[in-house]
Amino acid sequence: MGLAFYELVGAEDERRFSPYCWRVRLALRHKGLEFQALPWRFTEKERIAFSGQGKVPVLTDGGKVVIDSWAIAEYLDETYPDRPSLFGGPSAKGMARFITDWCDSVVLPAVFRLILADIPAHLHRKDVDYFRSSRERRLGMSLEEFCAERERHLAELRKQLAPLRHCLARQPYLAGQTPAWADFAVQGVFQWARGVSPLHLLDADDAVFAWRERMMDAFDGEGRQALGYPV
Amino acid sequence: MGLAFYELVGAEDERRFSPYCWRVRLALRHKGLEFQALPWRFTEKERIAFSGQGKVPVLTDGGKVVIDSWAIAEYLDETYPDRPSLFGGPSAKGMARFITDWCDSVVLPAVFRLILADIPAHLHRKDVDYFRSSRERRLGMSLEEFCAERERHLAELRKQLAPLRHCLARQPYLAGQTPAWADFAVQGVFQWARGVSPLHLLDADDAVFAWRERMMDAFDGEGRQALGYPV
Repeated sequence: MGLAFYELVGAEDERRFSPYCWRVRLALRHKGLEFQALPWRFTEKERIAFSGQGKVPVLTDGGKVVIDSWAIAEYLDETYPDRPSLFGGPSAKGMARFITDWCDSVVLPAVFRLILADIPAHLHRKDVDYFRSSRERRLGMSLEEFCAERERHLAELRKQLAPLRHCLARQPYLAGQTPAWADFAVQGVFQWARGVSPLHLLDADDAVFAWRERMMDAFDGEGRQALGYPV
Repeated sequence: MGLAFYELVGAEDERRFSPYCWRVRLALRHKGLEFQALPWRFTEKERIAFSGQGKVPVLTDGGKVVIDSWAIAEYLDETYPDRPSLFGGPSAKGMARFITDWCDSVVLPAVFRLILADIPAHLHRKDVDYFRSSRERRLGMSLEEFCAERERHLAELRKQLAPLRHCLARQPYLAGQTPAWADFAVQGVFQWARGVSPLHLLDADDAVFAWRERMMDAFDGEGRQALGYPV
């Protein structure tokens, strides 16, 4: 049986562009677990209907089904305690939760605003109409209108990264001397962007840039080898 | 000898209003260490000249002198490893650093903008001129001008607290099930505000409000008993 991981991809199976799936992929590598990656596209709802919902990541482990990237991380740490921990203890897990929430409520929306309109060009043909219409209905405007004023939104993203910048000027990873879940949570967003958008989100002299380089190199260059744009 | 802690106070010795000193006070209580609190005022530079600089917190432990709240926390965890940890392991410490940086670059400036003009009324007479002139020189405007548009800045603070709010809707403390340094770092800012300003920073139905209540009750109500305003 083993682990199987349904992961969002674009036109090509190797174009992985879900921030949440990237978190799981990096978490699986961190734990050193073998897994079968199952490329999945937005409109393939029936393929994951067994999970009781319609989004990825979905992880199956033998008969066990786990959804939601945070829940998958918890599951992996509980089920494979002999492997390197994703959190590093109870209080570390509490703080990892905060950092995930910071990423999801600050970084992710700021990046969303910058790259959303770049996504359709990289989707599988069968996903394009679904993606555009569902997102535009939710936003109440076209993807292009939503992503207007790029310069202003890029400045805003860089400003919002200030705490990450300060922290990474003092230590190599969010989780200290070696990366862990908190790093994967944030890097997931950068991998998502890299997979679909040519936009340079970071200046080369930014401490966050240097950290992102380290994160792309981790696990034999897992992040760097994925299909995407130079950053 | 034992521990001695130079701590910023206002007109009254019990009006403690430095966010950094509050972090240290809560950290000392967390570790269950006895200490002698030495009330200190801005203009008493000569009293702490032995530390090689002019700001508090300053902690002395026998012949050892430690400055800077983060460095003090590190010192306490290293020197008293048998007491409850302030961080909870290496990766927890890394993340605590991030949360401190988030607090210092996002929360603290937002609160600063709201309460700075309330401080002079609570200072010891000998500190008032020094405080006002040094701050106004730095800001390039009067404290009152800096703190104008309170409603707008209050809305901004509450918006910036979103990740904390999300996290605390899931778990009682930033550090999970029990408080630790990350909680003290943020609560230090609220204790500072409470010491000098009647402004209500949080709505009563905010998850951050409930957390702040728990934090004020911690250590036999250390935070709640300090001289200050109801929040």
